[in-house]
Amino acid sequence: MKVIITRKILPIAIEMLEAAGHQCLVWEEQLPPSKEKLEQLCHDADGILSMLSDPFDSDLLAKCKNLKVISNYAVGFNNIDTAYCKSHQIKVGNTPDVLTEATAELAMALTLATTRNIVCSHLETKQGHWKTWEPMGYLGMSLEGKTLGIFGMGRIGFCYAKKMQRAFGMNVLYTNRKPNPEYEKEIGAKWVSLEELLTSSDILSLHSPLTEETRNLFDHPKFQKMKKGSYLINTSRGELVDQDALVSVLKQGHLRGAGLDVTTPEPLPLNHELQNLSNVVLIPHIGSATDESREAMAQLAAQNIINALKGESMPAQVI
Amino acid sequence: MKVIITRKILPIAIEMLEAAGHQCLVWEEQLPPSKEKLEQLCHDADGILSMLSDPFDSDLLAKCKNLKVISNYAVGFNNIDTAYCKSHQIKVGNTPDVLTEATAELAMALTLATTRNIVCSHLETKQGHWKTWEPMGYLGMSLEGKTLGIFGMGRIGFCYAKKMQRAFGMNVLYTNRKPNPEYEKEIGAKWVSLEELLTSSDILSLHSPLTEETRNLFDHPKFQKMKKGSYLINTSRGELVDQDALVSVLKQGHLRGAGLDVTTPEPLPLNHELQNLSNVVLIPHIGSATDESREAMAQLAAQNIINALKGESMPAQVI
Repeated sequence: MKVIITRKILPIAIEMLEAAGHQCLVWEEQLPPSKEKLEQLCHDADGILSMLSDPFDSDLLAKCKNLKVISNYAVGFNNIDTAYCKSHQIKVGNTPDVLTEATAELAMALTLATTRNIVCSHLETKQGHWKTWEPMGYLGMSLEGKTLGIFGMGRIGFCYAKKMQRAFGMNVLYTNRKPNPEYEKEIGAKWVSLEELLTSSDILSLHSPLTEETRNLFDHPKFQKMKKGSYLINTSRGELVDQDALVSVLKQGHLRGAGLDVTTPEPLPLNHELQNLSNVVLIPHIGSATDESREAMAQLAAQNIINALKGESMPAQVI
Repeated sequence: MKVIITRKILPIAIEMLEAAGHQCLVWEEQLPPSKEKLEQLCHDADGILSMLSDPFDSDLLAKCKNLKVISNYAVGFNNIDTAYCKSHQIKVGNTPDVLTEATAELAMALTLATTRNIVCSHLETKQGHWKTWEPMGYLGMSLEGKTLGIFGMGRIGFCYAKKMQRAFGMNVLYTNRKPNPEYEKEIGAKWVSLEELLTSSDILSLHSPLTEETRNLFDHPKFQKMKKGSYLINTSRGELVDQDALVSVLKQGHLRGAGLDVTTPEPLPLNHELQNLSNVVLIPHIGSATDESREAMAQLAAQNIINALKGESMPAQVI
């Protein structure tokens, strides 16, 4: 059957799909296909291996007459109209778990880069602004024994919290729909209200999916409630954050810094103020960007399609 | 008595010294004093709170006729002629332990920034070179289950190794004069030859002091022995590394990246090739740069002087 892969990914996915007897067509360009191109590519596809950047809304899906399965190369799937898929017997898969470790590592890398001024001090070194060892220069915050607040304690949030707790002896608080006694047992994490999370955390790290409840949840009043001198880390979705409010609390000095792997939109316009604050580390949505994780994602995304097209259960099925 | 503080540091040090009845003179300039200025400042000092950047050789020390104690604001003291001090009854102190945690955290920040392309991906985002989410872009190496090699397993090396092992389940190897059964017990670290350290480590991290044996130890033949695709992290002293050899193995692609908090000299000339490789993270010797650590260093450095001038034992005495 015909399978479209909407961007160039590691070759293992094509190898697996071809070994299962499918014909693969890969969009090889550097930039993603436009909506018109997607429609041309996908109108007769049986399966699609899609990216978060591909907007599979009902309009586009309605044009894919043969479509039996979409396998999204990501853990999130907010680019796909899942209600439409459900009502039209199109299966939807994703790639959870295999990117948990890489994304938790990235969240840790981003936290430490932010609290220890890695990016701004690198730039000052490279630009020749650093002249000599500075007893008062580039001071950051030690993590040892500080309080870490996790908003959204799913797989990735917990993996990150566990690493931070084990490495730095951090005191972990979390806000989630429900408490989980396992978290208490494994790392002493305490389930708290959002109010307490905001007022008590030295580092507040967002790990929640984008939903109507979380969209723009972190606004000016919430940021004002955060502890003075604390840091915001976001590796989930840019839309959780009111970016103008974030700029304002960073400029005031109420927050000491922010590390953002995600923004709205991506990329952020170059004249956006978040691009020009020296205490903001802005990176290009690279949570899952390791060789190991992207290889495992490619395998899982391909297997989802192979199984669905055989009528078998998918290893990671959303719908 | 008269105490010179050779750079502006956190005010707690002066408060303590003045409370003990001493008169403090602080060099307030942005850049350190020249050797001539140091001589003018220190010729009648009873105590000196010095920085790594102050070259207290025998020539300069001979001019400090009243000197009873030098307290170096660092864990290292390779800027001080300790043989001269010993033979002239000048006590020498340093600030170990209080910067162990901060330096281990920084080594971890630097490791993760290097393996996960934080700096180069930030720059491409900021310069507008990043256009859209990239399935094959900015791929780094996952740390989970990889092998970490520690050269110089002292306090800082062990603190870093412990954090890396606990966070990422890394397999830890180390080279040190002697094995330490505690390390084996606490984190399963294995004592190995330098040869095995080089050939087996995915991350090689240097934590050794600068001595005649370690100077330029990491040269071209040693880098060639390192595992292909591995990373070098240096938070100890720049002089351990032959920088031209490092440039060459990085350009070949034999090493995948390097994170350097220390170089020779500091700062490195702007036209040095290490300044222009996108897989090198170069930061301005900020191992101990946290509020918490610098405050504790200021207290300890001041206490060393207070005790020495009272003829009491110093909390951190080298000589």
